[in-house]
Amino acid sequence: MSSNRENLTLYNAHFIDGLVRAGVESAVISPGSRSTPMALLLAEHPEIKVYIQVDERSAAFFALGLAKASGKPAALLCTSGTAAANYLPAVTEAKNARIPLIVMTSDRPHELRDAGAPQTIDQNRLYGTHVKWFAEMALPDAEESMLRYVRIAAAKAVHAAKQSPAGPVHLNFPFREPLLPDYDGVFDRLETEGLPSVYLGEGVKVLPPQEIQTMADRLKGKSRGIIVCGEQQSKGFEKAVVELAEKLGYPILADPLSGLRSGGVHSPVIIDSYDAFLRNESLKQQASFEVVLRFGAMPVSKALTQFISKHAAAIHCVIDSGGGWRDPVGAATHMLAADESSFCRALSSCLDQPREESSWLKSWIQVNQTARAAMRSIEEHEELDEGKLFYEVLKRLPDGSALFVGNSMPIRDLDSFFFEDERSIRLLANRGANGIDGLVSSALGAAAIVPPLYLIIGDLSFFHDLNGLLAAKLNDLNITIIVMNNNGGGIFSYLPQASEEKHFEQLFGTPADLNFAHAAKLYGAAYEKVSDLDSLDKSMAKAETAKGPLIIEAITDRAENVIVHRRLWEKVSREVSELTAGDQFWT
Amino acid sequence: MSSNRENLTLYNAHFIDGLVRAGVESAVISPGSRSTPMALLLAEHPEIKVYIQVDERSAAFFALGLAKASGKPAALLCTSGTAAANYLPAVTEAKNARIPLIVMTSDRPHELRDAGAPQTIDQNRLYGTHVKWFAEMALPDAEESMLRYVRIAAAKAVHAAKQSPAGPVHLNFPFREPLLPDYDGVFDRLETEGLPSVYLGEGVKVLPPQEIQTMADRLKGKSRGIIVCGEQQSKGFEKAVVELAEKLGYPILADPLSGLRSGGVHSPVIIDSYDAFLRNESLKQQASFEVVLRFGAMPVSKALTQFISKHAAAIHCVIDSGGGWRDPVGAATHMLAADESSFCRALSSCLDQPREESSWLKSWIQVNQTARAAMRSIEEHEELDEGKLFYEVLKRLPDGSALFVGNSMPIRDLDSFFFEDERSIRLLANRGANGIDGLVSSALGAAAIVPPLYLIIGDLSFFHDLNGLLAAKLNDLNITIIVMNNNGGGIFSYLPQASEEKHFEQLFGTPADLNFAHAAKLYGAAYEKVSDLDSLDKSMAKAETAKGPLIIEAITDRAENVIVHRRLWEKVSREVSELTAGDQFWT
Repeated sequence: MSSNRENLTLYNAHFIDGLVRAGVESAVISPGSRSTPMALLLAEHPEIKVYIQVDERSAAFFALGLAKASGKPAALLCTSGTAAANYLPAVTEAKNARIPLIVMTSDRPHELRDAGAPQTIDQNRLYGTHVKWFAEMALPDAEESMLRYVRIAAAKAVHAAKQSPAGPVHLNFPFREPLLPDYDGVFDRLETEGLPSVYLGEGVKVLPPQEIQTMADRLKGKSRGIIVCGEQQSKGFEKAVVELAEKLGYPILADPLSGLRSGGVHSPVIIDSYDAFLRNESLKQQASFEVVLRFGAMPVSKALTQFISKHAAAIHCVIDSGGGWRDPVGAATHMLAADESSFCRALSSCLDQPREESSWLKSWIQVNQTARAAMRSIEEHEELDEGKLFYEVLKRLPDGSALFVGNSMPIRDLDSFFFEDERSIRLLANRGANGIDGLVSSALGAAAIVPPLYLIIGDLSFFHDLNGLLAAKLNDLNITIIVMNNNGGGIFSYLPQASEEKHFEQLFGTPADLNFAHAAKLYGAAYEKVSDLDSLDKSMAKAETAKGPLIIEAITDRAENVIVHRRLWEKVSREVSELTAGDQFWT
Repeated sequence: MSSNRENLTLYNAHFIDGLVRAGVESAVISPGSRSTPMALLLAEHPEIKVYIQVDERSAAFFALGLAKASGKPAALLCTSGTAAANYLPAVTEAKNARIPLIVMTSDRPHELRDAGAPQTIDQNRLYGTHVKWFAEMALPDAEESMLRYVRIAAAKAVHAAKQSPAGPVHLNFPFREPLLPDYDGVFDRLETEGLPSVYLGEGVKVLPPQEIQTMADRLKGKSRGIIVCGEQQSKGFEKAVVELAEKLGYPILADPLSGLRSGGVHSPVIIDSYDAFLRNESLKQQASFEVVLRFGAMPVSKALTQFISKHAAAIHCVIDSGGGWRDPVGAATHMLAADESSFCRALSSCLDQPREESSWLKSWIQVNQTARAAMRSIEEHEELDEGKLFYEVLKRLPDGSALFVGNSMPIRDLDSFFFEDERSIRLLANRGANGIDGLVSSALGAAAIVPPLYLIIGDLSFFHDLNGLLAAKLNDLNITIIVMNNNGGGIFSYLPQASEEKHFEQLFGTPADLNFAHAAKLYGAAYEKVSDLDSLDKSMAKAETAKGPLIIEAITDRAENVIVHRRLWEKVSREVSELTAGDQFWT
């Protein structure tokens, strides 16, 4: 019979070996006692990169960022009790955003549960419906059958987490004291012969050819169609969808997270300023469509959502390899669980040459050019308002960099001011549940994978995950964080309650009066304050060589921000109205 | 039929009126859009004190602190999505620590769920087994039957949250746009006649007299008994248990959170230094007992836990009004679901005069005095080590103040150095799940109810909930925070892995090198650094008149801290060995 220490050591070592063989390359660990065996063995494995973050909430978002940027599952480890509960926000985001996470929580053994023992909560199915798989693991045991079991459990966890739609899985490990494994050099002496090492594969969902042909035949007769692309993860999608759009003569309304506004694919069919011009009511009437093909998550633009929802199109087709029901407007006529790229290619091959002289498509391109030019007029603003600042930062991002944006205002400003671009800039955000939490950590996790990385974030959101900055220090990471500090919740100024003075500042504006120069000092970050284009130039130049975190703070104004945005939208509206006047434009 | 706005206004107003009538006096709100109707109406109610905290995790711990200090349920409100997920750590703590919370989450209406809509997660039973009651609420509706329903739901929520064992309940409110209620002055015009207003009452569990008599008869023959008291909430318990102990001739081993070491009740039977002297193995053998009566949660002392678990006592009786199974050592012979105070009084009345000349009790008192004196020798230390600092801070706490302590080291130092005291000092901690999270917020919530309040906390724990400080600023609260900064996880230096150098600092020590002077500036707190008794005197004097948060930081040393504690315990051990030498001491 094996000794307790041997059980502890081999069981956990084989689990970790199983994770590594299944493709896990990184783990984020928060300090704790109950997790000691797994923590020491993770740190010991030569092929696992270990990151440390004390705050488990931030740790989980950091792992989310690693997995999002790498496309590979990241592991998480914490001790028992509320530590595990702190993972929930990132777990829900990962579930909704389809990010693979292997969540490992350590727990008291069974005899110490529901018995008043310290640091013990019910960790069984702690994340409820928000994980794809949960397993209550066996106690450490070095019997061969149990080593087989634990290696397979690791493979199973990764297989479940990665399969489309990807997401988090949760394994709860009971550990009994003593907790110290014989870790030193264990992976050099680990005997794996005869033990399972399972190759993991996953096919893509492809519709039967006759279904594709039927769809192609129906689309041939319909010239007034649009394609809408949100965030998606299908390989080769950008090229495939542009080819399809060109053949159909349909514009692609491309969300900033679709991957279409930047990088290798360029085409005039990519429409990037729809959020501005779809606020024009008469244009929305005139541009009524018969067909919409939708790929990926719902775009951030509310104007686009309303445009889509107001039309009872003959064909409203949602294509999702993850098989989700992505139709908040309740307008879908076809719900297709199929790989997006394969679908585009298959449909393209059923179509003839590109629809000739599509005036419909030309109209969209013209409107987009007009709207984009009007939006770009922000360049002439003398004041460094929030929109202008956003625009100027975007202009200065180096080719090959990554940009993570916060929720609430930043993602909307990105939508407004990130126009189709020659540079290859990877755009990232947490749009699973759109929380304002965990963004510093998510961005830092991504920065570990795809540097150089810039984060643009509002002050409340920055405050919410200030703790995330500790990971930069503990793990030697570089990041540039541009904080748009409008002293409170800027988005509420766009909502109906903005007209209510009573209670507004207390409940919604919540001015926190935070000077982030102090936060920078606390976490050993460099700090720059930006008040004009010169200082922005200097700060952005510093960012290119900075080591560690650099915080660039810009003070903006909530009320003015609303005015500037509304004026721009009005300008767009006027100009597209002029352009599209007359009955002939959209026909 | 009622208008949408009327539905929204009256439904929520009646719910809040229901909460107030059921005894809710405070609500903690985090800004959000979906929660707008409830937020505005809470702010409008004249009898609800509204507190604001942007970070929902901190907000929930703040509410926990309010409820803990006041003994009354506190309400919580947030928007949809990850915001609600951030409540889980405090919810699990509240469940385990038996603190009543009314958790209100706002949600998308049904038609926007599982449909790719933004900021939408599955909030149904989001907190799983960690709440006492969950209700998915109906959509706002002003029909009389629905106003009856919603008023009763409020009463039901409070009734469920308050009943022993108290705990959190969760109500999920779907709200459909538009979200703006007609809030202004609504409570002046609210018609409640004919609508339910339910009085809530709860009895205490009392055992049948014959069961008490049987127990009394058995105890009469057993002179070697001990009483162990942990944190409990039974009214009048302190007096009742001391009377019982005096009658039985049993010592009371009183955890610092039992309420027995400070305040109105004083008695030599109260033993406060057992954690030190129960580390002496031969003493543990000699002091073997036949009876243990346990009340409240398990004490923090591991030495005590081991002492209890090593004895197969004839009677090991756990009395808990909450009916929990508080026996991690698996030694109970009697598990009694009964009100603690009533049980003590009933048992006392079945006993005759106090056991005369109980040499057993005298021995305990003598050992305790010896151990306490040895522990107090820390006063003579010249260096301001962690234990000495703790001791000196305790000495300087004003009568009538409250002290909140962090987990890991502070609660253990409290156990070591808070001796039975004439001053009335309310001792508080989060010992439900013993997390290092949420402590700043919990203490601030308590500070709003029972000022002046002092918090003693380690650096990692302070870091974990730095965001909590924003609540002091947004809600004008006073608190003194003493940070023991030993640059990392001090408790790990007491665990077996401390002897392992490889990976230790990375995984367990985690030195974060944080200078909290910057945190103080960020949150507008006053800041003092303490390095000797003079500066401690000055800082503690400032604390008595300070407005807003005051942070007092002391730099300590992890390694030295272990040495100092071990030396003290050895001194205690030597001195009690001398005292108890010979066969006659314990007989």
